[in-house]
Amino acid sequence: MCIFLLIFAENPSSIPFTMEQIRNFQELTAHLSARADRKKIAVVCADDPETQYAVERALRENIADFILVGDSGKLKGVRFVEEFADRIEIIDEKDSDTAARRAVELAREGRAGALMKGIINTDNFLRAILNKETGILPQGSLLTHMTAAQVPGMNRLLFFSDVAVIPYPTLEQKERVISLDLAMLRHFGIDRPKVALIHFTEKVNPKFPNSVDAQTLVGMAAEGAFGNAALAGPMDVKTACDHHSAQVKHLESEVAGEADLLIFPNIESANTFYKTITYFGHAEVAGMLLGPKCPVVLTSRADTGLSKFYSLAMAVLGA
Amino acid sequence: MCIFLLIFAENPSSIPFTMEQIRNFQELTAHLSARADRKKIAVVCADDPETQYAVERALRENIADFILVGDSGKLKGVRFVEEFADRIEIIDEKDSDTAARRAVELAREGRAGALMKGIINTDNFLRAILNKETGILPQGSLLTHMTAAQVPGMNRLLFFSDVAVIPYPTLEQKERVISLDLAMLRHFGIDRPKVALIHFTEKVNPKFPNSVDAQTLVGMAAEGAFGNAALAGPMDVKTACDHHSAQVKHLESEVAGEADLLIFPNIESANTFYKTITYFGHAEVAGMLLGPKCPVVLTSRADTGLSKFYSLAMAVLGA
Repeated sequence: MCIFLLIFAENPSSIPFTMEQIRNFQELTAHLSARADRKKIAVVCADDPETQYAVERALRENIADFILVGDSGKLKGVRFVEEFADRIEIIDEKDSDTAARRAVELAREGRAGALMKGIINTDNFLRAILNKETGILPQGSLLTHMTAAQVPGMNRLLFFSDVAVIPYPTLEQKERVISLDLAMLRHFGIDRPKVALIHFTEKVNPKFPNSVDAQTLVGMAAEGAFGNAALAGPMDVKTACDHHSAQVKHLESEVAGEADLLIFPNIESANTFYKTITYFGHAEVAGMLLGPKCPVVLTSRADTGLSKFYSLAMAVLGA
Repeated sequence: MCIFLLIFAENPSSIPFTMEQIRNFQELTAHLSARADRKKIAVVCADDPETQYAVERALRENIADFILVGDSGKLKGVRFVEEFADRIEIIDEKDSDTAARRAVELAREGRAGALMKGIINTDNFLRAILNKETGILPQGSLLTHMTAAQVPGMNRLLFFSDVAVIPYPTLEQKERVISLDLAMLRHFGIDRPKVALIHFTEKVNPKFPNSVDAQTLVGMAAEGAFGNAALAGPMDVKTACDHHSAQVKHLESEVAGEADLLIFPNIESANTFYKTITYFGHAEVAGMLLGPKCPVVLTSRADTGLSKFYSLAMAVLGA
């Protein structure tokens, strides 16, 4: 399954197998390169240089194989397509909406382990995924977005939701977002993820329903609703990430200063965190949709090739 | 009035007087040190080392004189109190609430040009300020909080509201917050402040009232409601501050990539920005209340001495 498994298999006297935690994007890609089974990823309209950078690098680093669905004319002369011809399948669909539906079909049939969006309108791409008859969102399942950030100087990846799909999550939606995110965090080898429920203060106040939700979710976690995970909040971003802030506030919490996952109360605060941590904090980020049958990479045109590559790698990990 | 005025006064043939823009906290304190008139600041319960650091440094750098209102027993043995005895007045009030009321009275009477909070409960401090009969918030006036951040590598201070007082500003409140903030920005010598109305996307959508408010405020600015200032939005934090992001999005705006002032749609996003820019972006910050008869420094216990000093300096500038 992975390099760690192989190592332990050769040393049967060692402690029971646990995967080592993946703490940054380099460890993520190294982990994927070392895996014996290579997943197949369907990419819709891989026409832009950034998506092509991500696909080419994933090929070179042995992270995944690909089905490129789209206008094959646009792939003419793209060097890596020839170089890796044995690891790339091309499905020619001139119309991007049809291409999206074909890619979703591949995921439905289990022929693709994850999906990635290239140059196609986001709404149209999502429509194919969400289609009740031909889509890949199981009935009653929630769609959410999770970001992973690698911040210079930080000893772990920082995950957070939701910058893209659920603007104002209800209590029930928060519960389901957390469950989906935690399942993904466990792929990163985080045995007991620490989840901070973000608010602008540590006080619970009925005037601020998000603070009450936080308290409720912490109670649910204590009763085992989220498995082996520590939830705490309400707390602010700094208290969640910075030991010193947590100490100044005398917060006795397993999560304060140690958060792996930040759950934001609304899209304005989540987006502000995303933009501030990338621009002012120089973080690298990756993102994916969770909830569908398989991980979906929903990049935007403004994303760098590197960000698209890391997003792709994260999706492969969850595939 | 200031060093620039004196220089120009000696050179009558020079261009008409304009103050040079203050672009960081060092320029702010240098500007204040060079002023001929020294303001008097009333500090309530200056009992903690951080507040005392701020007061002492303001004395050493000739930025302000002080009236220290509180338990004078707690100032016994504090070195700078003796050293600067001629620039410090002490009003002995054992009870912190009474001390707050006395300090507010000094501001009402014009004997203090600004107020600063030391170790006293924030609610009690605010109660003295907001008291309808003895307070200093003019009838019908709005109370808001403005932060200034100095981000490493940035060529100007970045101002934003509101992390503390108005959780979910209405359109009318946003209008008044902007007016109060702009008046303060002009003290920094910013002739034509650039204001970004923050949202998670550039799209105006009736489903998101904050995006509609942004559009309305931009229209009001075009009609001159805010004097010589440029307003734009809705836009996200990165687009407001980063030229590259603005270019990628093909935004033609005087504000995009050049914002001086960010108006956040709610306290969750404002607080997230504050915490992220300080912890992950290594920014120094200063903050103050606007709306009352004079600037009020409302620090929190977690603030560093340096942050309290810069906040004090900002209040002196507005005094």
